[in-house]
Amino acid sequence: MTMANAMFFQLLTIVPFLSLLLLSPSLALNQDFCIADLPRGDTPAGYPCKPQANVTADDFYYSGLATTSPPAAPFNVGVSSAFVATFPGVNGLGISAARADMAPGGVVPLHWHPLATELLYVLDGTMACGFISATLNKVYTKTLRKGDLMVLPQGQPHFQYNLGNDTAVALSSYSSSSPGVQVLDFVLFGNDLPSDVVSKVTVLDEEQVKKLKALFGGSN
Amino acid sequence: MTMANAMFFQLLTIVPFLSLLLLSPSLALNQDFCIADLPRGDTPAGYPCKPQANVTADDFYYSGLATTSPPAAPFNVGVSSAFVATFPGVNGLGISAARADMAPGGVVPLHWHPLATELLYVLDGTMACGFISATLNKVYTKTLRKGDLMVLPQGQPHFQYNLGNDTAVALSSYSSSSPGVQVLDFVLFGNDLPSDVVSKVTVLDEEQVKKLKALFGGSN
Amino acid sequence: MTMANAMFFQLLTIVPFLSLLLLSPSLALNQDFCIADLPRGDTPAGYPCKPQANVTADDFYYSGLATTSPPAAPFNVGVSSAFVATFPGVNGLGISAARADMAPGGVVPLHWHPLATELLYVLDGTMACGFISATLNKVYTKTLRKGDLMVLPQGQPHFQYNLGNDTAVALSSYSSSSPGVQVLDFVLFGNDLPSDVVSKVTVLDEEQVKKLKALFGGSN
Amino acid sequence: MTMANAMFFQLLTIVPFLSLLLLSPSLALNQDFCIADLPRGDTPAGYPCKPQANVTADDFYYSGLATTSPPAAPFNVGVSSAFVATFPGVNGLGISAARADMAPGGVVPLHWHPLATELLYVLDGTMACGFISATLNKVYTKTLRKGDLMVLPQGQPHFQYNLGNDTAVALSSYSSSSPGVQVLDFVLFGNDLPSDVVSKVTVLDEEQVKKLKALFGGSN
Amino acid sequence: MTMANAMFFQLLTIVPFLSLLLLSPSLALNQDFCIADLPRGDTPAGYPCKPQANVTADDFYYSGLATTSPPAAPFNVGVSSAFVATFPGVNGLGISAARADMAPGGVVPLHWHPLATELLYVLDGTMACGFISATLNKVYTKTLRKGDLMVLPQGQPHFQYNLGNDTAVALSSYSSSSPGVQVLDFVLFGNDLPSDVVSKVTVLDEEQVKKLKALFGGSN
Amino acid sequence: MTMANAMFFQLLTIVPFLSLLLLSPSLALNQDFCIADLPRGDTPAGYPCKPQANVTADDFYYSGLATTSPPAAPFNVGVSSAFVATFPGVNGLGISAARADMAPGGVVPLHWHPLATELLYVLDGTMACGFISATLNKVYTKTLRKGDLMVLPQGQPHFQYNLGNDTAVALSSYSSSSPGVQVLDFVLFGNDLPSDVVSKVTVLDEEQVKKLKALFGGSN
Repeated sequence: MTMANAMFFQLLTIVPFLSLLLLSPSLALNQDFCIADLPRGDTPAGYPCKPQANVTADDFYYSGLATTSPPAAPFNVGVSSAFVATFPGVNGLGISAARADMAPGGVVPLHWHPLATELLYVLDGTMACGFISATLNKVYTKTLRKGDLMVLPQGQPHFQYNLGNDTAVALSSYSSSSPGVQVLDFVLFGNDLPSDVVSKVTVLDEEQVKKLKALFGGSN
Repeated sequence: MTMANAMFFQLLTIVPFLSLLLLSPSLALNQDFCIADLPRGDTPAGYPCKPQANVTADDFYYSGLATTSPPAAPFNVGVSSAFVATFPGVNGLGISAARADMAPGGVVPLHWHPLATELLYVLDGTMACGFISATLNKVYTKTLRKGDLMVLPQGQPHFQYNLGNDTAVALSSYSSSSPGVQVLDFVLFGNDLPSDVVSKVTVLDEEQVKKLKALFGGSN
Repeated sequence: MTMANAMFFQLLTIVPFLSLLLLSPSLALNQDFCIADLPRGDTPAGYPCKPQANVTADDFYYSGLATTSPPAAPFNVGVSSAFVATFPGVNGLGISAARADMAPGGVVPLHWHPLATELLYVLDGTMACGFISATLNKVYTKTLRKGDLMVLPQGQPHFQYNLGNDTAVALSSYSSSSPGVQVLDFVLFGNDLPSDVVSKVTVLDEEQVKKLKALFGGSN
Repeated sequence: MTMANAMFFQLLTIVPFLSLLLLSPSLALNQDFCIADLPRGDTPAGYPCKPQANVTADDFYYSGLATTSPPAAPFNVGVSSAFVATFPGVNGLGISAARADMAPGGVVPLHWHPLATELLYVLDGTMACGFISATLNKVYTKTLRKGDLMVLPQGQPHFQYNLGNDTAVALSSYSSSSPGVQVLDFVLFGNDLPSDVVSKVTVLDEEQVKKLKALFGGSN
Repeated sequence: MTMANAMFFQLLTIVPFLSLLLLSPSLALNQDFCIADLPRGDTPAGYPCKPQANVTADDFYYSGLATTSPPAAPFNVGVSSAFVATFPGVNGLGISAARADMAPGGVVPLHWHPLATELLYVLDGTMACGFISATLNKVYTKTLRKGDLMVLPQGQPHFQYNLGNDTAVALSSYSSSSPGVQVLDFVLFGNDLPSDVVSKVTVLDEEQVKKLKALFGGSN
Repeated sequence: MTMANAMFFQLLTIVPFLSLLLLSPSLALNQDFCIADLPRGDTPAGYPCKPQANVTADDFYYSGLATTSPPAAPFNVGVSSAFVATFPGVNGLGISAARADMAPGGVVPLHWHPLATELLYVLDGTMACGFISATLNKVYTKTLRKGDLMVLPQGQPHFQYNLGNDTAVALSSYSSSSPGVQVLDFVLFGNDLPSDVVSKVTVLDEEQVKKLKALFGGSN
């Protein structure tokens, strides 16, 4: 028997073992990943999976955090996100990312993520970063420089602002493919909850509420 | 520039920041909730989500526990539930509720929830509530009055019965949107498992089994 | 062999089967429950378990929601909670409860739970209940009457206020034994985050911030 | 430079990379496993970990299912389990196992596992295996032969009994390291829940209850 | 009233209680199980559920591990699996199984399961079983005989090989319905990753890589 | 009543509401975070929590990824990690990070994380990044430039190598606070698993194994 023949026979005989790996062309035995098939809509655990035969390396790749939108008033910050709705490759994997570029004087306004912890890494510049814990009614703030990490636990309200004269950039990762984000100003001033109700449930002056509703696009 | 103009420009410039919140009319960036779209059928993590544009405040609301069905023999108890199949708003959120109204002499018969812990709150009356733990082969029973709480851990068989002369009412919440419920009498006597098999796997007398099969609608 | 003897022998022979249930007096085979041993301190999954031999029915029982503290300014609301720190029986079971009594004109101010969904049941009275979702920048509000349920998804800011002339009472359950609670006014005005920083990260007027810091006990 | 020297230098230079793997002798960077340190007591997520330096291959090994205790009346079944309390190696890993040897005529009586699904494999003999689902009030029963699998979903009551003339043996695995087990006869007849209460919450005749309490060791 | 009539009335009156169990023929109140409807495709939490009305006892049953394929070179092992893709009954239940028959000299080659812990039970013969932990850079190996268990924690590379003169058979269960499997030889030598890249990221000699690529069906 | 007095009374009356937030100085009502108390040792869900009164902002901060160790042979890569064992602030939060600096020609060798998905972000340079999926026996590789993201699903073996003439730097986040890491070369060649066994379970030539054992510090 020639060497080539021997190999051929060995390959043949591996086939039963391969049965551990592949069942049929149309049905995968493993769920090594589950690229979101966005148009089919969400479930509580994420989106249905794109058929594996159609998956390519591009599905695991996202370039949208290489740059970000230009900083804009009133916060002078530009934000880009790589959550499952924009980066379908993270579907079901419990992780995602976002990027914030703060111009000098820029601020990432007070917000929280209902479904994830944030781990912030400073790509550039110097910034203040803090969160407010209800446990002991306490604020935890740090000055962060390039290369520093700060963890912002799930659901805790937090903020960053630029402390330097150049753009400060943060790359954040999240412990969910869909962390959600609640920006306080949009909660209070960006919708049609009547100003007197906002005032009633916050004790903010109604005049203050109306002023900021005008700024953040809210009505009533 | 007039004040109105300034506001207009500020609103415009907020748009990039809004990109954090909304991607497009048809595709939400966040999964703040996932109302069950029941007709599309279940997955292990719950039902697919109703399109967010169709969601209204009514989807988060359920009035079915305001009253309950009239108590009925043999247990003189009326039960209503707000599980995901009746209250689609709890889909994927790990919580649900039910209500039991025990007429005088009424009983919530021995049962357990395969997938959830129960937290029982007494709305009215006085009742005995207990569960049987296998750990030390022990029964934990309490007399509960209006406003009392008792926790009944997942999968543990439990019961309540009215100790007073008026209707006693319990409101229970569960640590799952679909806790399941296994009522012992239906398990043993409400199906077509042959009486001799029921007797064999429980050591109950076969005569006893047949008598109760007649009561609970079982056959064989 | 007499009947009594037969029983005696049968009991003896059950012993091996019992080995499935009990290993030794000091070591339980099952974890049917895990009452929090609070003094030993927390872990990410909850508190260590109280030794099972010391557990009694009282550990599963809590009467602290039968009444509540008297409503107090500025919100005219009294609140009691049955979270793991007050009700050790819910430890590790993914459920807990709280109660809010709103005097006429009373308000449960805007807040959210970082780690749990809330399922609110109206014990008495009529109230408005709403939450603000970032998904479509939308408010979902309902008027709730006695017996109504409303679900408030995890991390979403929500509020209630009394719509009637009598006390309105809500009983809420949560999908965690330690849901956490972030009250907006305490976040913004109840700590030592400097007023200018609060203003910077919210665009609230600094004067407004200082006024409310005085009310909610904040400094700086 | 000699070959040996080159190797030496290369080994030296690998050290920084090794820092990814090992931090210090006393503190491991990874939690590849967590052998239960039983005497320190349980938490909701399992037992604290035995120090890694003390772990040996024996911690991952268990021989207690190689045989089982002799079948005993009234069920003529012997049972052994490899749950975390007997096999500390499965701690935190979401899996465990048990073995049941049914003598001819032997029965694994009706029971359920509060915290786990069971996957039963027939090691020997022929048996009936069934479970009762509440969903459609239906019994699912199969005759199983050597090498067959049957899955018994979490919290659903199930049973097996020998259909042959030789011992039938089942090896079951569970989706939890501590699945718990509730045997119906012990729930009803093996504790001090008064006979009239058992009768009230099950509609079983009190005479029947008392008869079986005598058999299963219950009182009252 | 005759006895039959009494029964009839009692059955009628049970109906409200049954409402706890069944909502309508087309909509189940409980999710006692969720048989995978494979053709509809996967989600991160598993497959959508087959309609409950179509479920039979056969859906919970699998006979594919009663035998296995004949051992094949180069490892002289036959493998069968009961993962969700072949055994839809385990869908969403966090458990599955597989079987490996090693001929004399046979080997289950080095592999790991990305998503599950393995619990191995020896059905027949004598084998070596080991895994390599990164924690202390240590190998844990045991000689296993009929009836022995060994646990192989999630993601840890492990192997078995026959130590006897007869076929050795292992039955393994997994803590996931879709554990996945990565066989080292297929990772390195069974695909089109270029040989120089394999060599670069492993330091294996490129000649070695090319030799084994020929054996395991890889290209480039 | 003066304004100051009014405030004083209002503060007093807020106290009952504060009871929702703080129970006592020694017992926190919320678990907003759980800083690892490393010396007390691990549990399956992470480390016990440091007492909250001792927590400072520094506990949420880590500077160890600002730089990394110098690249070292044979891979010319320096690696730093911020897993729970080095950064106790991520305990229980399901997230962590690491950084790899590849000198020109540098390689992050083939490895996988048993317990987490990796989300890689390119801080600097150009690199190849790929992983091998068993599903369709396929390799997914991309060329990544500064700012690009690639997701590497849990348990899948992956690698990176520098494609440029300058150092290439990757910042990775993980979906676990303790992802674990298995480097293929350490698995095969860095321990005392005998060379003939390594060869048997991989089909690598024993000579190849011995050569690399010398390089990676393995024995036998």
